[in-house]
Amino acid sequence: MTPRVREILSWYGSDNPGTLGNLARLLNHGKLAGSGKLAILSVDQGFEHGPARSFAKIPDSYDPAYHFELAVESGCSAYAAPLGAIEACVRDFAGEVPLILKVNSSETLYSAKGAPISALTSKVEDALRLGCSGIGFTIYPGSELRIAMSEEMTRVAERAKQVGLVVVIWADPKGELLSQIGESSIDVVAYGTHIACQLGAHIVTVKVPSAEIEQESARRTYENQGIKIKTLVERSRHIVQCSFNGRRIVLFSGGEPKGTPELLEEVRQLAQGGAFGSMMGRNAFQRPRKEAVALLHGVMEAYTGRGL
Amino acid sequence: MTPRVREILSWYGSDNPGTLGNLARLLNHGKLAGSGKLAILSVDQGFEHGPARSFAKIPDSYDPAYHFELAVESGCSAYAAPLGAIEACVRDFAGEVPLILKVNSSETLYSAKGAPISALTSKVEDALRLGCSGIGFTIYPGSELRIAMSEEMTRVAERAKQVGLVVVIWADPKGELLSQIGESSIDVVAYGTHIACQLGAHIVTVKVPSAEIEQESARRTYENQGIKIKTLVERSRHIVQCSFNGRRIVLFSGGEPKGTPELLEEVRQLAQGGAFGSMMGRNAFQRPRKEAVALLHGVMEAYTGRGL
Amino acid sequence: MTPRVREILSWYGSDNPGTLGNLARLLNHGKLAGSGKLAILSVDQGFEHGPARSFAKIPDSYDPAYHFELAVESGCSAYAAPLGAIEACVRDFAGEVPLILKVNSSETLYSAKGAPISALTSKVEDALRLGCSGIGFTIYPGSELRIAMSEEMTRVAERAKQVGLVVVIWADPKGELLSQIGESSIDVVAYGTHIACQLGAHIVTVKVPSAEIEQESARRTYENQGIKIKTLVERSRHIVQCSFNGRRIVLFSGGEPKGTPELLEEVRQLAQGGAFGSMMGRNAFQRPRKEAVALLHGVMEAYTGRGL
Amino acid sequence: MTPRVREILSWYGSDNPGTLGNLARLLNHGKLAGSGKLAILSVDQGFEHGPARSFAKIPDSYDPAYHFELAVESGCSAYAAPLGAIEACVRDFAGEVPLILKVNSSETLYSAKGAPISALTSKVEDALRLGCSGIGFTIYPGSELRIAMSEEMTRVAERAKQVGLVVVIWADPKGELLSQIGESSIDVVAYGTHIACQLGAHIVTVKVPSAEIEQESARRTYENQGIKIKTLVERSRHIVQCSFNGRRIVLFSGGEPKGTPELLEEVRQLAQGGAFGSMMGRNAFQRPRKEAVALLHGVMEAYTGRGL
Amino acid sequence: MTPRVREILSWYGSDNPGTLGNLARLLNHGKLAGSGKLAILSVDQGFEHGPARSFAKIPDSYDPAYHFELAVESGCSAYAAPLGAIEACVRDFAGEVPLILKVNSSETLYSAKGAPISALTSKVEDALRLGCSGIGFTIYPGSELRIAMSEEMTRVAERAKQVGLVVVIWADPKGELLSQIGESSIDVVAYGTHIACQLGAHIVTVKVPSAEIEQESARRTYENQGIKIKTLVERSRHIVQCSFNGRRIVLFSGGEPKGTPELLEEVRQLAQGGAFGSMMGRNAFQRPRKEAVALLHGVMEAYTGRGL
Repeated sequence: MTPRVREILSWYGSDNPGTLGNLARLLNHGKLAGSGKLAILSVDQGFEHGPARSFAKIPDSYDPAYHFELAVESGCSAYAAPLGAIEACVRDFAGEVPLILKVNSSETLYSAKGAPISALTSKVEDALRLGCSGIGFTIYPGSELRIAMSEEMTRVAERAKQVGLVVVIWADPKGELLSQIGESSIDVVAYGTHIACQLGAHIVTVKVPSAEIEQESARRTYENQGIKIKTLVERSRHIVQCSFNGRRIVLFSGGEPKGTPELLEEVRQLAQGGAFGSMMGRNAFQRPRKEAVALLHGVMEAYTGRGL
Repeated sequence: MTPRVREILSWYGSDNPGTLGNLARLLNHGKLAGSGKLAILSVDQGFEHGPARSFAKIPDSYDPAYHFELAVESGCSAYAAPLGAIEACVRDFAGEVPLILKVNSSETLYSAKGAPISALTSKVEDALRLGCSGIGFTIYPGSELRIAMSEEMTRVAERAKQVGLVVVIWADPKGELLSQIGESSIDVVAYGTHIACQLGAHIVTVKVPSAEIEQESARRTYENQGIKIKTLVERSRHIVQCSFNGRRIVLFSGGEPKGTPELLEEVRQLAQGGAFGSMMGRNAFQRPRKEAVALLHGVMEAYTGRGL
Repeated sequence: MTPRVREILSWYGSDNPGTLGNLARLLNHGKLAGSGKLAILSVDQGFEHGPARSFAKIPDSYDPAYHFELAVESGCSAYAAPLGAIEACVRDFAGEVPLILKVNSSETLYSAKGAPISALTSKVEDALRLGCSGIGFTIYPGSELRIAMSEEMTRVAERAKQVGLVVVIWADPKGELLSQIGESSIDVVAYGTHIACQLGAHIVTVKVPSAEIEQESARRTYENQGIKIKTLVERSRHIVQCSFNGRRIVLFSGGEPKGTPELLEEVRQLAQGGAFGSMMGRNAFQRPRKEAVALLHGVMEAYTGRGL
Repeated sequence: MTPRVREILSWYGSDNPGTLGNLARLLNHGKLAGSGKLAILSVDQGFEHGPARSFAKIPDSYDPAYHFELAVESGCSAYAAPLGAIEACVRDFAGEVPLILKVNSSETLYSAKGAPISALTSKVEDALRLGCSGIGFTIYPGSELRIAMSEEMTRVAERAKQVGLVVVIWADPKGELLSQIGESSIDVVAYGTHIACQLGAHIVTVKVPSAEIEQESARRTYENQGIKIKTLVERSRHIVQCSFNGRRIVLFSGGEPKGTPELLEEVRQLAQGGAFGSMMGRNAFQRPRKEAVALLHGVMEAYTGRGL
Repeated sequence: MTPRVREILSWYGSDNPGTLGNLARLLNHGKLAGSGKLAILSVDQGFEHGPARSFAKIPDSYDPAYHFELAVESGCSAYAAPLGAIEACVRDFAGEVPLILKVNSSETLYSAKGAPISALTSKVEDALRLGCSGIGFTIYPGSELRIAMSEEMTRVAERAKQVGLVVVIWADPKGELLSQIGESSIDVVAYGTHIACQLGAHIVTVKVPSAEIEQESARRTYENQGIKIKTLVERSRHIVQCSFNGRRIVLFSGGEPKGTPELLEEVRQLAQGGAFGSMMGRNAFQRPRKEAVALLHGVMEAYTGRGL
């Protein structure tokens, strides 16, 4: 147990030792073990975008075992996925990598312009029987249906914390009144981060924020207070600040697939700004396996600032 | 227990031996026993379309015993039906054929254009007292009401798995934003298949997909990645791929009544693409009994590639 | 236990001794202990307006510990905040200051003109495990969604009262049919105050009311009956009257940031009219720490009419 | 919050902030506030020995209000009693003194030689509605019925800890195979102390131990290891050691009524040995009120080693 | 994950992946990680024999943190203890060593000749909130009260297995009709081992068996079938055989304190016979710390047959 991991655990004073143990498990697993940084492989794109759009590029990735293997081989801190994918392979990988059960998911077969919301697709008891260290929950701050999501979240998180699981919130602002650019603007991402923290997340995952500002009411503050958001380093620092001044673990999702140098540069800047790590999805599993492992290692190195 | 059945059971590592036992019961019953293929007779059309539309053609089929007899006589792997039909005859057929209790159903007395959803019509406890091997649940990915269905599904499946039942999901994409052609387009059926797998289905049943593509976002992938979907063999192969790369049993429903040669040709192509079997309904029970048995045998032969 | 505190407790005859004990804890803590007055620090602006707009001015205030410290250092009667902020620091401050868990919150990422409503973000059980003395709930009288809020409130308050917690209602009239000026008009604030009392609040928090009158139906009464509302002292007296003739504790929220002399003059007038205290937010934590403490002390002195 | 209180709270790392808050409340109340010592008035003798035996000497003490007043007037850390006595007066004393609800009790109307056991007489929910800071539970290690008591204790303590209450165990070894002298022998009291700690008590109350040794198996250890038990100072030190080496708060009950100088000398020796305080009963309330207050003050002074 | 650990996990086919994950955690922790052997430090002697008899020899061991430290420092596979000892220190050691919560315990303050039975002292929910990998339960085959124990065991194990915990049974034959020598006779220990396996234990702990035979009915079989039980190697082999022919992990408890060479020789013979490891108690913590660590290392080396 490194001093840094101990320090991070000390921020979770209201949580029981079960949750602390599972948090420690994430922080002490894989190549980033002990560094206080996390690189988590997360694969729910099949559910969110459909299987072909997600897996056709690397046909082996249609097989849920592929993702377990990728997480294990690359030394990720954890692997996050919906119920079915975990059920299909977990026995074969029991004890190999900490797991996070995504308990809600969206699908784009229903793609109305209306208020976004995710469906509950599994339960805290599932996480226990499958041996997961935590549960993952997506919220859409800005959605007209945020009320329903928040109440569901509250109920799920209460039980998860009772039984010693870690609660990871994917904060993905989205809604009728947010522009598409606005969804990843710095003010909106910062706001979504803070909401996730206030809802009691142990770990928050957000998009990489742009330098745009969406809300006029926020613009005044950013300008008047001279909040630095020009560089990604600065924006990373601001997001960390907005997650209880760094008292909550905040990860950035890789988002849309992009080139390796571009992605690694992005991660280096996030890391320099104090980010706690990355939630990697398409950028990992939509690359050929060797490249994917290399990329994940590159990401990990960016967080530790040294070779693995 | 054939090696193939063993192999299939090995994919269900998170399930308890009760569920495995019931899965084995399906796989080892009837004329397809041991082949790893399934032909299930499923009769819920009376509920879905009304009795006259369903049974008038073969008046004997108003009697639920008729369907039990058909399943037994033809050597089907299992028989699936809603509560009432099973309650009416199960004592007389106890031990004769594995049963799947359809726990939700739709009716077309209410036929508004609105968001499709099924009603819960029976419970896991019913499946136990009636000696069923599994429960069946229909979902409508793409419906505005997918959230409610998903949560209900999650709750029902959790209990079914606890008590060792098999969970069969009928994945039937349908909703305000899908065209009627789109409901059986290859991209949408593939997506629905994957959602059912992610929701934790042991067996998925889907429509026979057409070569159409519904979603523009998907079209790009199918074209750019050169996913082969021209022939039904190819589409069958793609659907199997989208069900966890073949780690979940995927069946195709017969759909609308059609001529025998046409239907058998369809099944042969599905089989050639790797389909695990067929969920037969109207195409069986709306034929005179002898023809129905012959057709079912034809279907079974198509899956094994040899005489019975 | 001062006679005044005893008198106040005597108004809560239907409440169990647990709730009385917690009410006494608020009334006997901090610099106002025993005076029958309350000064509560409340920080949910991060959730309501976003983190930058709330905390950028005093960057230390991004840290939830900052607010605990401010409440303790200034001798506030209690500190109110949403789940996450309390979870993050409560172990370190256990026993230092009474806590009120805000169990619902709004966000302005969703800023439709539509019916305002808050989302439930935590539970009564959370308040118990975190050692809070009460729960806080915001209602928007005048909203089309008041029904849902009221039923939720009813359910939450029932449980809170069973387990001996204090129920604080933030009554914030707001809705499609109220003008923006009307939201703080004397008739509307008075009406909101009374609704909160009728919903069973132990403590009500409202905006500082203006001399405007929003509803024509109310105007007649105010004019015909010669209700005095010209000065803030009079309006404070009227609001106290409307909270069961002073049998419920009614606090005024500080509202928009303003200058120190202006704010203190406002508080003095509220105090003179019989207000029970202030719910301080931005006016406290958006000042430099020393000034914030000084301001809070000024507010407290205004209520007691003497130096601390 | 004194450093000593902080240190004591740090030993309860598995408890939630609610329990820590209530523990802090005990440690920060009354004349011993902040010292890390506790003097608790406990009155269940009416239940245990009958009212006349308990209260006839000081007839005012038939009134449960008398004991509340005594606890408040003398500045005790808390007052412990069964349900009825607390219900009768708690509204009048809400917020005046931390309360501990004795949730089980014995009666001597049933005085068979058989296995001693207490009856559950109230519940954790009662403690919440009455505003108690903790619950008290008596166990009789050595009783043939220890099994039933332990299971009840386990169930009650689980819920108490969930809702943030303090669990006080009165460890009172008693049973068919223990001699009456043995019940307060050093080896038996030490053993009972340790059992209470292992059952998850936050605070343990035990009899003042004599220098006797009851169990032959223990005698060997005490003699061979040279455990010092001759003086009461030494025995107090040993009992503290046996309560997790001082990581749990251990109090000594006053026991049989005795003379003031004798009692105070006893307390001074307990204090010198490191005892955390006294649970006072008959020695307090069976003295005239003034004497009782004086005695309680004497006890408190003995623990702090200075005037109050 | 070594092939041997995989092989061991393969024996637990009816268990869910959660239990497998926790079993893997035990098998992959500490100095024996991956070897398929376990060395567990177990400290419930304070409860079973009283604190002085257990800890006086090494006074530091009165402190529950001492045992956590010993388990961590020596690289044990896990640490087992009752509720209180785990609660007292678990936050400080979260994630440092797998924990087993002893959910029942005996005390020798009640020392009747009567039927032995343990008291339930904690719950499966406690194990979850404290982050334990398993629960431990002592049974006394041969006791008149075996029925009550068995039913309790059944209830506790059912829930433990649902939530993915490992069930460790201490099988300690004891009862009115067994002689004291008989309690560790080979036939009785073998019988107790088998009963624990049949009750659904994942791991069984038994005494080191002597070459005595207690039951006349058994003697005939042992003699007629020529079961080899003369050497400890043979008896170890027989016990492994009786635990489902080696399909369950069987550990031997260290028992009474003995000299280092004697103990290590015993362990070497147990290891040679196929034992899966040792449950170490007094022989570890009743030695000076350095010696204890050295001894534990010696034990571990005996199981792997090589230096650590």
